[in-house]
Amino acid sequence: MAHMADVYIIGSYSTRFQKWPDKSFKDLTREAYLGVLGDSGLDDGSDIEIAYFGNCGLGTWGQPCIRGQVCFTPLVRDGLFPERVPMVNVEDACATSSVAMNGAWKDILSGQSHLALAMGVEKTYVPGDPARTMELFAGGIDQLDPGEWQAHYRQQGEAAGKPFETGPGRTIFMDTYAMQASHHMRKWGTTQEQIAIGAAKNHNNGALNPLAQYQFEMSVDEVLADREVSHPLTRSMCAPIGDGAAAAILCSADYLRNLPSDVQSRAVKVKASALSGGKYRSLDEPGLTKIAADKAYAMAGISPADIDVAEVHDATSFCEIYQVEMMGFCEIGAGGKFVGDGHTMLDGKIPVNTSGGLVSKGHPVGATGLSMIYELVAQLRGEAGARQVDGARLALAENGGGVMGMEEAAACITILEKDS
Amino acid sequence: MAHMADVYIIGSYSTRFQKWPDKSFKDLTREAYLGVLGDSGLDDGSDIEIAYFGNCGLGTWGQPCIRGQVCFTPLVRDGLFPERVPMVNVEDACATSSVAMNGAWKDILSGQSHLALAMGVEKTYVPGDPARTMELFAGGIDQLDPGEWQAHYRQQGEAAGKPFETGPGRTIFMDTYAMQASHHMRKWGTTQEQIAIGAAKNHNNGALNPLAQYQFEMSVDEVLADREVSHPLTRSMCAPIGDGAAAAILCSADYLRNLPSDVQSRAVKVKASALSGGKYRSLDEPGLTKIAADKAYAMAGISPADIDVAEVHDATSFCEIYQVEMMGFCEIGAGGKFVGDGHTMLDGKIPVNTSGGLVSKGHPVGATGLSMIYELVAQLRGEAGARQVDGARLALAENGGGVMGMEEAAACITILEKDS
Repeated sequence: MAHMADVYIIGSYSTRFQKWPDKSFKDLTREAYLGVLGDSGLDDGSDIEIAYFGNCGLGTWGQPCIRGQVCFTPLVRDGLFPERVPMVNVEDACATSSVAMNGAWKDILSGQSHLALAMGVEKTYVPGDPARTMELFAGGIDQLDPGEWQAHYRQQGEAAGKPFETGPGRTIFMDTYAMQASHHMRKWGTTQEQIAIGAAKNHNNGALNPLAQYQFEMSVDEVLADREVSHPLTRSMCAPIGDGAAAAILCSADYLRNLPSDVQSRAVKVKASALSGGKYRSLDEPGLTKIAADKAYAMAGISPADIDVAEVHDATSFCEIYQVEMMGFCEIGAGGKFVGDGHTMLDGKIPVNTSGGLVSKGHPVGATGLSMIYELVAQLRGEAGARQVDGARLALAENGGGVMGMEEAAACITILEKDS
Repeated sequence: MAHMADVYIIGSYSTRFQKWPDKSFKDLTREAYLGVLGDSGLDDGSDIEIAYFGNCGLGTWGQPCIRGQVCFTPLVRDGLFPERVPMVNVEDACATSSVAMNGAWKDILSGQSHLALAMGVEKTYVPGDPARTMELFAGGIDQLDPGEWQAHYRQQGEAAGKPFETGPGRTIFMDTYAMQASHHMRKWGTTQEQIAIGAAKNHNNGALNPLAQYQFEMSVDEVLADREVSHPLTRSMCAPIGDGAAAAILCSADYLRNLPSDVQSRAVKVKASALSGGKYRSLDEPGLTKIAADKAYAMAGISPADIDVAEVHDATSFCEIYQVEMMGFCEIGAGGKFVGDGHTMLDGKIPVNTSGGLVSKGHPVGATGLSMIYELVAQLRGEAGARQVDGARLALAENGGGVMGMEEAAACITILEKDS
């Protein structure tokens, strides 16, 4: 590393995740922008030098290009967002807005800006037209030559004892995760009940989160008795369809130095932001998130045991079991027992998905990564209310996107730190 | 600027721009990747740490997400591209691949990588389905609330003496440029013949470029006699529809130091890369490209008079007149005379669009920016053949994207330098 200056988050915001048929992309952008600006303590946005805008689905809404510029047009017109700010539109499927934040971080690190905005905005719910929603999700897998991954899935599904199914009404994402879960159960003795324990824990956390899409408690039995999506996954183990926006404002150490002390005292340091790419992986190889996490730990100069609180990408509750292994919170293969024994609960060894995670907080694709950052910033500031993890000082977010072959196509790991 | 390390381009490549109905996105990606790798002198791509992938239209081809990952799948499978390389998908309409290169540059500048790939790939030609092509181009303007820019265009069109037209078969882009041209003619005395002189010059340059979509000479009279697209613009003053890919490999000074001397001797330094955003501008205000150019000149520590050769975004030949003003090659208002007097010709004061520019070389949206870089790298290396500008040492690329309100929504200015 040639150069590692400090970069800070001074503002973060998330809308409630929900089906928002009456809110436009511009409405969600406005709420997230004014929210993050307010949280940052800045008088206005006039110092913002660049914006990284994350979105996956605007093409299906008729706006394939200059998405950020279009969504910010009313804010510029109303004098709320400065003119001439460059906007870089980024996309990495469900990892989109973490990658947007990675861009803002590098922009500052590279000395090109002192104050940068990262935002993710998404609407996945299309009233009366579920096929449009499915089209968006299908875009996260190779549609140009589907034969290649289908062959891989058939072969891996056989090895996992979970034959690959495809067809109308089936979501590839959930089937993929179900295959991975089946393999894990067969190889490591993970149980469906352990998966349900993680799901129930996240629903119970979500019940404490005013921004969660689902704010109701669930018992393990209720999770197990819910409608099956793809065995062993039931509906309440799977992230719902929804809309939302989340944002963060990042600044350089030089910029932070000149801010009022109450703003400085709420600032959170970005200790690491690391990316990795996916591949056609066999189910027995460690995944891309482990590679990105190892990079992030090295960058931060810490080990997994140092992390106080984490958000991981539980597109299904099996993912939480898998990701606590990849993040190094437990041994590989021990994730089922680790979650099943309650170590990821609010009062556990390492509280995971205090927000409710994707299954309860919701998962509007391109907004999800920055909503994880929002939750962790709240935790590190001690502002997480009923979900607060006492004395949290180091936090990790794991965000993956797309489907490559038995794993995501993109992953971003972020490590945040709060100086006492 | 906290930190300005040197970043170099060691490889660049462009496919021929053309209508390529028989080449897939993956075919174009493969050609551009193997081409840029070959040009870089690297034995293989194993040191590549990150890729920034630019594309605008893949959503209309059924692949809205993880575009780069999907396009590189066969290269990874064949062992030609390393596994686990993160890919950041970026989009800024016609400025897309310059923004991809800006991302690769910042990645290295920020100390996160030593070797980074930037690529732009596009297919805009859909055989038998021109409406699909039009849908892609329409995506570069606000489709969520078209009333806002239409009102602005009506008002500005009136001021320009060129009433705003819209309707089936009309391309907003060309009508916008025609309004800007009409305003310039009325205010500064620019003539249609001066626009045609620039167009003919670019077609004559394109005739010398084996990668140009149109490789035939045109006289000023032929340009003027061509079919009218939107007065004062005729067809040969407008960029054609086509497909293609272009790429660059960037590295840090540390990485370059360990490469063979013949690779080092062909390396080109990135002196500056600057972005700006667009706004609902009145035709009398200077545009976003001037703002980005001023930033780039300051970053490079040079003035416009230092530039030896430039590529500017002549989506229409009026743009070349306008952009030589914005780049500071002549006074504001004097662009018509500057181009008309031949100062942008191959043997002129400041040769512009030696490649043939967008009107002759072609303009596959998301690939265009990196094709400009390809041309300028060839010029700086003295490898531009019949188009060579003797002794070129400093080069500038101006690339704009989208339509905001009488200007682009995004602009990127790149300045390159070849040490002798």
